[in-house]
Amino acid sequence: MIIEIEKGFDETVVQIQEMVKSRDCRPDVLLGDLYTVIAVEGDATQLDAQYIETLPGVVRTWRISSPYKTISRRVVGDNHQKVVRERRSVNVPGPDGKIRRFCDGNFVFIAGPCAIESREQMEGISGQLSILADRYGIRDRLMLRGGAYKPRTRPWDFRGLGSEGLDIIERIRDRFGFPVVTEAMAVDQIESIGRKADMIQIGTRNFQNFNLLEAAGQSGKPILYKRGISAELEEWLSAAEYIALQGNKDVVLCERGVKSTTHGDYNRSHIDLDVILAIRNRTILPVVVDPSHSSGFAELVPYQFCAASVYPSNGAMVEVILDETERRSIRCDARQAVRMSVFEKMIRFRLDIEKIPQSFDSTE
Amino acid sequence: MIIEIEKGFDETVVQIQEMVKSRDCRPDVLLGDLYTVIAVEGDATQLDAQYIETLPGVVRTWRISSPYKTISRRVVGDNHQKVVRERRSVNVPGPDGKIRRFCDGNFVFIAGPCAIESREQMEGISGQLSILADRYGIRDRLMLRGGAYKPRTRPWDFRGLGSEGLDIIERIRDRFGFPVVTEAMAVDQIESIGRKADMIQIGTRNFQNFNLLEAAGQSGKPILYKRGISAELEEWLSAAEYIALQGNKDVVLCERGVKSTTHGDYNRSHIDLDVILAIRNRTILPVVVDPSHSSGFAELVPYQFCAASVYPSNGAMVEVILDETERRSIRCDARQAVRMSVFEKMIRFRLDIEKIPQSFDSTE
Amino acid sequence: MIIEIEKGFDETVVQIQEMVKSRDCRPDVLLGDLYTVIAVEGDATQLDAQYIETLPGVVRTWRISSPYKTISRRVVGDNHQKVVRERRSVNVPGPDGKIRRFCDGNFVFIAGPCAIESREQMEGISGQLSILADRYGIRDRLMLRGGAYKPRTRPWDFRGLGSEGLDIIERIRDRFGFPVVTEAMAVDQIESIGRKADMIQIGTRNFQNFNLLEAAGQSGKPILYKRGISAELEEWLSAAEYIALQGNKDVVLCERGVKSTTHGDYNRSHIDLDVILAIRNRTILPVVVDPSHSSGFAELVPYQFCAASVYPSNGAMVEVILDETERRSIRCDARQAVRMSVFEKMIRFRLDIEKIPQSFDSTE
Amino acid sequence: MIIEIEKGFDETVVQIQEMVKSRDCRPDVLLGDLYTVIAVEGDATQLDAQYIETLPGVVRTWRISSPYKTISRRVVGDNHQKVVRERRSVNVPGPDGKIRRFCDGNFVFIAGPCAIESREQMEGISGQLSILADRYGIRDRLMLRGGAYKPRTRPWDFRGLGSEGLDIIERIRDRFGFPVVTEAMAVDQIESIGRKADMIQIGTRNFQNFNLLEAAGQSGKPILYKRGISAELEEWLSAAEYIALQGNKDVVLCERGVKSTTHGDYNRSHIDLDVILAIRNRTILPVVVDPSHSSGFAELVPYQFCAASVYPSNGAMVEVILDETERRSIRCDARQAVRMSVFEKMIRFRLDIEKIPQSFDSTE
Repeated sequence: MIIEIEKGFDETVVQIQEMVKSRDCRPDVLLGDLYTVIAVEGDATQLDAQYIETLPGVVRTWRISSPYKTISRRVVGDNHQKVVRERRSVNVPGPDGKIRRFCDGNFVFIAGPCAIESREQMEGISGQLSILADRYGIRDRLMLRGGAYKPRTRPWDFRGLGSEGLDIIERIRDRFGFPVVTEAMAVDQIESIGRKADMIQIGTRNFQNFNLLEAAGQSGKPILYKRGISAELEEWLSAAEYIALQGNKDVVLCERGVKSTTHGDYNRSHIDLDVILAIRNRTILPVVVDPSHSSGFAELVPYQFCAASVYPSNGAMVEVILDETERRSIRCDARQAVRMSVFEKMIRFRLDIEKIPQSFDSTE
Repeated sequence: MIIEIEKGFDETVVQIQEMVKSRDCRPDVLLGDLYTVIAVEGDATQLDAQYIETLPGVVRTWRISSPYKTISRRVVGDNHQKVVRERRSVNVPGPDGKIRRFCDGNFVFIAGPCAIESREQMEGISGQLSILADRYGIRDRLMLRGGAYKPRTRPWDFRGLGSEGLDIIERIRDRFGFPVVTEAMAVDQIESIGRKADMIQIGTRNFQNFNLLEAAGQSGKPILYKRGISAELEEWLSAAEYIALQGNKDVVLCERGVKSTTHGDYNRSHIDLDVILAIRNRTILPVVVDPSHSSGFAELVPYQFCAASVYPSNGAMVEVILDETERRSIRCDARQAVRMSVFEKMIRFRLDIEKIPQSFDSTE
Repeated sequence: MIIEIEKGFDETVVQIQEMVKSRDCRPDVLLGDLYTVIAVEGDATQLDAQYIETLPGVVRTWRISSPYKTISRRVVGDNHQKVVRERRSVNVPGPDGKIRRFCDGNFVFIAGPCAIESREQMEGISGQLSILADRYGIRDRLMLRGGAYKPRTRPWDFRGLGSEGLDIIERIRDRFGFPVVTEAMAVDQIESIGRKADMIQIGTRNFQNFNLLEAAGQSGKPILYKRGISAELEEWLSAAEYIALQGNKDVVLCERGVKSTTHGDYNRSHIDLDVILAIRNRTILPVVVDPSHSSGFAELVPYQFCAASVYPSNGAMVEVILDETERRSIRCDARQAVRMSVFEKMIRFRLDIEKIPQSFDSTE
Repeated sequence: MIIEIEKGFDETVVQIQEMVKSRDCRPDVLLGDLYTVIAVEGDATQLDAQYIETLPGVVRTWRISSPYKTISRRVVGDNHQKVVRERRSVNVPGPDGKIRRFCDGNFVFIAGPCAIESREQMEGISGQLSILADRYGIRDRLMLRGGAYKPRTRPWDFRGLGSEGLDIIERIRDRFGFPVVTEAMAVDQIESIGRKADMIQIGTRNFQNFNLLEAAGQSGKPILYKRGISAELEEWLSAAEYIALQGNKDVVLCERGVKSTTHGDYNRSHIDLDVILAIRNRTILPVVVDPSHSSGFAELVPYQFCAASVYPSNGAMVEVILDETERRSIRCDARQAVRMSVFEKMIRFRLDIEKIPQSFDSTE
């Protein structure tokens, strides 16, 4: 943390120095003509910038150390040395014994309906995905998704099958062997979802539902954690720290589009692909994208998916339907689901692009 | 709902007509040269616009009827007649037997610390507010606020005293007689807060925590419900409907500022005062503002407060401290609390402005 | 400017020190364990932060000195002493010999149609305004507005009478004695507008039309300079500096609402009243608001106007019409003009509020 | 246009019908129980929705026909038939006799420095680009860029060499044979730029400088027209219509990122790639992207460039430098220029991706 103080407030300077030392940090004081700067070395997390800014003469403060140190990529270790941590591989073992790895150099396909609407629907989609998995050799890179509990903007809309949906997940896992991710909307759903699914999703609307985040952290399950619709990166990572602080670092971040002042009726939000690079730079966590919710339109989904493939993302979550007939019968987000035939093309594009040598490291 | 269909999709037209009738609505069909328009009369809430837009030939749909009919100001009654409902008075009885009324023509002052940090702090502030209440004759228009459970962006920050804070609320109520509002962050806090406080606050970050909203709806207590940081009005009102649908229409909406692309470092968000008029136009619910969180700076709070006084708002919630010495010792949002002497000026301004005759009805 | 450099880049430290000295500034170097901080004292305007950030080891830079020093309220004077400049009074003399003063403690009413559509229209409105001016004793606080050249989002809409509109302005000035402000959209309009009107408006869409700003700066006329629809304050003030650098500090800033992600159909943009305080804090320039364009609806205009009256704004610009009959015949922004009878109420409210003693200085 | 009117306003219905007929359109009237709907068939561009909304009883209007009919992809032709126009190929002939085509199935590389800073700089970069052009067989797909007139947020920054820069462009064209695009900031620059360069750029800040747009339209030169920093698509296309209405349809739209409430310090704006699809759907104009200004950081540019390659964009404009040594000496946007070696990789990636069969048509 760096603190700028106007000249003539010596008492404040002394007060801050003592405060810094009491937190086991070291204050370096620079005396200038017009202002004094105190640079704090060490773990400044415990210092309250808001409080410091109320002291007489303090102009402002800049926080340098990370407010999310458990998941941060760079930390200050013992002996005040900077340490760059290894990126984390979040592993999701499936009922088939295979592990889906969200990690450097791997890309996981997550596919399924928006909401689980019936056993037949899940079986139909899972069967088709199973065929694709074998056709393209991606069984150990494929997961299923499907909502049992659905947050809906309006209370009048279909809100999921609830525990009946979880039972369907259970059967589908047994039959097809894929691991499944499904959303928890409330603390009291965590336990049953943890028992019946392989990964717990925390959705956009709950991005700062801190009690839910902590319960997810205590669940011991891998978490798929979506960005809030207008969340700044630092807000998102600070909230992810709520999960990690409970001892659970198996968190996969999921970019799902943000609000903008400019988008019209042609998409639902702006997908922020650059955040993939920022996340890799700042944290040890893997990151995936959700082009379905981000775009809101089936026609856009393949493009956002492929664009994300150009970035070092670790996977993508896509809502699929069997065909146009099914689109007309589903009750949730029908506009954004892609047909199985389109999803197959997306897989092919992804596999093709993996063969293109590409490295844009800024360090070379 | 109005549905626009390209020419040559007669089957779709027939299909939609049947669907509309099956929902007890009436489809009026307009046949044009280039497109067909179906206008739905009656309660179109049960029609799924998303689904309809997937039908072949459908260009788009416009929803006219409200997605929040329980709290809507205008409804279609029996005999297909439009009805304008009366505005609701949300009444909060205090331990002193007086009722604080959030209603047309009344303005309630809600004041107190951001977080309850100690019994002494609450007693000090409540004592001063009690003096002001008597000095200005506003005892039956004054409520206390104070957080026992605090949502914090970063897990490292002070998160409230929890149930100990609720105990302090209990004692303060007994001693000073003012009703108290405090925030619930999780479903399992609703019961105890409902027992110990007079009004339950649902905060910005939980604005679409639908499980919490429904629990608040079942609590039987008046609810102070804040807008999400980037919530559009329709999203906010649709979410308020989650509370009301549980049978609880005692909901006071609270504008607390929204994100903008333009604000710099001089305020934290943009307070949206125009929304007060829009809420009055569309719903029966009262609306207050929170200039403290909206602005983020003590210097701005009185201005936002007074500006809101010009609009037909039904109250304001303000974070206060005793004096500058206290500012330095508090652990939560110290920058935005106004000193008691400033709050007194704000009260005076409000009372002065109430004497100015003003009516800007667009109908006159 | 403060520059943070990682350890081990001594060459960069030396290079920056030399660069700083070559700009007649003083580099103070703080050597910490993990990084080095260079604090630049003096006029750092000439230092290119972007360039410095490309040097090896530079983590980041913070600019402390103002990028708009000609209009800045605080400057570093000789002997490295901070100086607080006096606020500027921008004076607009009218054909009647009276001066309208945009300055501390004064509030100027600017009223008129959006576009000048005919001589009769301007005479009708000016005549009514003249009556109000006398009725409320505000003749020396009233100016007229009216567009001869109108920027329109769509080329098909009415774009003003052009030079014919300027002729109407000339006649109106002669007859009624009020000074008039009208918009210049292009460099080659500046000269004729400068001859025929009393104040030149630079509109929202031209907020970063730097050639136009410089021409306005050279015109020798007072300038009414509107904020861009998504302009951050620093962008706005930096652009105002383009005008001032030409030797013309007679610039009145005009807040007219900014884009937001949240506004629905109930207003056109969010008026940012807090910016009034920020402008007063950072610059010597007066500031007014434009509730007509900001809100977009006649029903909202009086509220935004009155709310701005609570802040220390130096005036407001309001679009008016005679009555509802006229509303139906005008070709530009008919929705946002207030009737003369409403404008009269707004004047009364403003005059009433001026009588309320109010001072919310944060320093008291 | 569709107009919704409350019941009981028969006079308004009659009035609108007459107005519609007077514009050679046809009003179809639907009489419902609660409201009347008038659907206008034909060219509703001449109807003023704002005016109509002021009539008594009018609830609202929806515009269906396009406000930018000159560049619209779908128009209503004679006999009221819908016509889908062919996409336009904007052709830029170079001094070497080759034509660079912005059209379906082609992708043009535009590269060069941000600002032209010296003849040596332009020669160095052009020479290297010439080598790449031959190495990868893309000479007829490569153009140069370089600013002679630079709009800068702050007046203190380097603002380009002006006419001297144009002279350098002239020499570079002669020597290397590539066509050059450069920005015009003011009407009086259009003529000389039109003489010395091959394509005129209209920049972000002038996106609604309508006088400049019309002058560009009269220049007879191809125009590269950038989106405003917070421009909605309809605003952008309506403004493009200003150019096209002058008889010049050789307009290439350029997406350059938009403001967002959420981006932090890791990028400068959000690139909106989905707009590429929306533009193709709505207009006949080609569209390119500018990843340099959009991202603001050299590290992000290749990713945004490659992501845009996945969409059906018709080109990209990239700021390049020779190497890191040059980065330290340039005076404009040094952070965002990519080294020549990185640009070569980008070319290779683009050519590789062109070989991947990909078609995501929603119609298949």
